[in-house]
Amino acid sequence: MLKAKFILEETITRLYRDSSPTCMKVADLGCSVGSNTLLVISNIINIVHTTCTLLNRDPPTFQFYLNDLFGNDFNTTIKLLPDFYTKLLQYKEHDSCFINVTPGSFYGRLFPSNSINLFHSSNGLHWLSQDPFLGLSKEALNKGNCHIVTTSPPSVYKIYLKQFQKDFELFLKSRSEELVPGGAMILLLLVKTETPRRSIFETISLTLSDMLLEGLIEEEKLDSFNIPTYEATMEEIREVIQEEGSFFIEESEIDMVPWDGRKIEDGEDFSVDGDIRAEFITRYIRAVMEPLLVANFGTKVMNELFIRFQKKVVELMKVERLEYANLMISLTKTCS
Amino acid sequence: MLKAKFILEETITRLYRDSSPTCMKVADLGCSVGSNTLLVISNIINIVHTTCTLLNRDPPTFQFYLNDLFGNDFNTTIKLLPDFYTKLLQYKEHDSCFINVTPGSFYGRLFPSNSINLFHSSNGLHWLSQDPFLGLSKEALNKGNCHIVTTSPPSVYKIYLKQFQKDFELFLKSRSEELVPGGAMILLLLVKTETPRRSIFETISLTLSDMLLEGLIEEEKLDSFNIPTYEATMEEIREVIQEEGSFFIEESEIDMVPWDGRKIEDGEDFSVDGDIRAEFITRYIRAVMEPLLVANFGTKVMNELFIRFQKKVVELMKVERLEYANLMISLTKTCS
Repeated sequence: MLKAKFILEETITRLYRDSSPTCMKVADLGCSVGSNTLLVISNIINIVHTTCTLLNRDPPTFQFYLNDLFGNDFNTTIKLLPDFYTKLLQYKEHDSCFINVTPGSFYGRLFPSNSINLFHSSNGLHWLSQDPFLGLSKEALNKGNCHIVTTSPPSVYKIYLKQFQKDFELFLKSRSEELVPGGAMILLLLVKTETPRRSIFETISLTLSDMLLEGLIEEEKLDSFNIPTYEATMEEIREVIQEEGSFFIEESEIDMVPWDGRKIEDGEDFSVDGDIRAEFITRYIRAVMEPLLVANFGTKVMNELFIRFQKKVVELMKVERLEYANLMISLTKTCS
Repeated sequence: MLKAKFILEETITRLYRDSSPTCMKVADLGCSVGSNTLLVISNIINIVHTTCTLLNRDPPTFQFYLNDLFGNDFNTTIKLLPDFYTKLLQYKEHDSCFINVTPGSFYGRLFPSNSINLFHSSNGLHWLSQDPFLGLSKEALNKGNCHIVTTSPPSVYKIYLKQFQKDFELFLKSRSEELVPGGAMILLLLVKTETPRRSIFETISLTLSDMLLEGLIEEEKLDSFNIPTYEATMEEIREVIQEEGSFFIEESEIDMVPWDGRKIEDGEDFSVDGDIRAEFITRYIRAVMEPLLVANFGTKVMNELFIRFQKKVVELMKVERLEYANLMISLTKTCS
C-alpha cells in the first residue's frame, strides 16, 4: 500500500511540476456516494500544495468533477459539501476549489476535448458497460452460473474478456480526447494475478447456483443474468493500452487486500473472528451488489441470498485467504 | 414576451458571433428542479445552431453547469438527462453537449476565473442571500409582518434594499471574475414598477398576520422570520450595476405576467374561473415557498396557511389584476 501511495504522489507531483496549470481540472470517475469521494479531493489538493511549497510556487485553483452513473445518489454527496468547503477554508485560500458533478457513463465522452489535467478512478473499471452475454446465448456455455467460475469453459472467459477489451479501449480513447497534452490518469481496479484466487463475484454466483438447485430462484432468471464485472490480468490491461496507443504506463503496483480491507500479517490465523469479518464483508458486498441483484431476482430473496453468502464466506475463510488483487496504474497521455 | 425572446436571441447570437468559442461554457444559476432547466439548455443550443448556420460555421460543443443551492434535489434533474441526451442526438452531432451540476450559492464564487462564456439566471435573483433583519431587531419596525407590506415604514424598505444591494453587488463581482472577456449574462427576476402592485410575498405575509391574530401561529415565530426576497426597481438595479462597474446593460425589458402565468387580454373579466386560477397559483406558490415556511412555522399549519392564501387570492382577483413584473436584462462584461 505504501508503493501505491507513492505512485499517487509521484503522478500528481510530476503532472503539476511539468504543466503548472493556474487552474487544475481533476475528474474522479465512478465517485460513488459519500465522504470517500471527498477524501480523494483533499488528498489531491494536499499533494499539490506540498509540491507548490517545495517549488516555491503559488498553489493553483482546482476544479473537480465527480462522475458516476445517472442513477447514483449525488444529493447525499452534495449535502456534505458545505462542511467540506468550510474545512478547506480553515487552512487554504478562499475560492481555491470548485466542485461539480458530472453524471454519465465513463464508457463514452463526459468532458469537452482538451479540458482535464488529471483523471482518477477507484474501483470502477472492473465494472463492464453491460452484460457481456447481451444478445448472445450463454445457456450452453455457463448454465447455472452468472459469472466466471472454476468450471466455466474458456469460451466464457473469452466473452467476458472481449467485453472488457471493448470497454477499456473506449474508456482510454474518450479520456485521451478529454485530457490536455501531458495529462495523467491514476486508475485503481480489481485484477487477476497468476495465483488462482477465488473472486467475490464467483462466490455470489456459486451462492445463486445453490439457491437455484434448491428451487429458491427461477432458472430463467439466473439464465438471463450475468454479473457485469471482469478482473483482467495485468497483461490484458497492458495489451489494450498499447493497442489503443494514447497512453504509456508510468508505473503500476498490485496490492493484495483482504475482502474486509484489514491489513494481513504473515502467519496470522484466518479463522480468528471469522464470523465478525464475514458479517462485515457481507454488509459491504450487499451495499455494492444489491441494486443489481434486486433488479433481476427481486427483493424477496435478498436476505436469504446474503445469509447464505455470509455462511459461505465463513467456511471459505477457514481454508483459504480471501483476498483480492488491487492494481494501481499511473498513465500519461502520449504526445502524438 | 416577444421582446424578451428577442433579447435572449440577440444576446446569445452576439456572444457567439463575437467570440466563436470552440466549446461554449454556459451556467444556469438557480436552475431549480426538473425539465424547465433542460429547456433552457435546448433553447440556447438551438439559438447558437441557427447562428452557426447563418454564419456558415461548425457548431461549438457546449459545457453546461446547472447551479442551485446544496439542498436542491439534483438527483431528479439528473435522472432526466439520459432521455434528454437521446433527444439531442436525434438531431445534433454526437458528443456536442456535456452537462454538469454545480452546487452552491451564486452570492459568491462558483467557477474558476475566466472560465464561463454565458450566465443565465431565471427567477433567482429576487431571492436574498439571507434574512435582511439578521442581527437586527425588526420588532419595532415591522411588527406582525414578515415582508414589506403597504403599512411598513420606509426603514423596512431600506433594510431590504440594503441587503439586495449587497447581494447583487457580490453576484456581479463574482460573475465578472468568472466570465471570459466579452462574456454575457441574461438575468430574469421579479421587479417593482411605478404602478403600485400587490406582491405574492406581501400576500403570504398578510395571511400569516391574520393567523397570528387568531392565535394559529406563535408571535415569536413570526417575529423571528422574514421572507428573504426583494423586488428591486429598475433604477435600483441600474445603480448597483453602474457602481460595481464590471458590466454594461445591453438591453432590458419588463413584462407583466399574471400570477398564474396566463396571457391576459385587455378588458378580460378577471373573475372568470377565479377559483381554478387561485388553486393553480396556490399550488405553484406552495411548491416554491413551503420548505422555507415549514422550517420556521412547522408542518402542522401549512394546510391552513395555504387554504387561507387561496381564499385571499380569490377575493383579491375580484378587485385587482394579480400580476408581477418580470425583468429580463442582458449584460455584457466590460473590457477593462
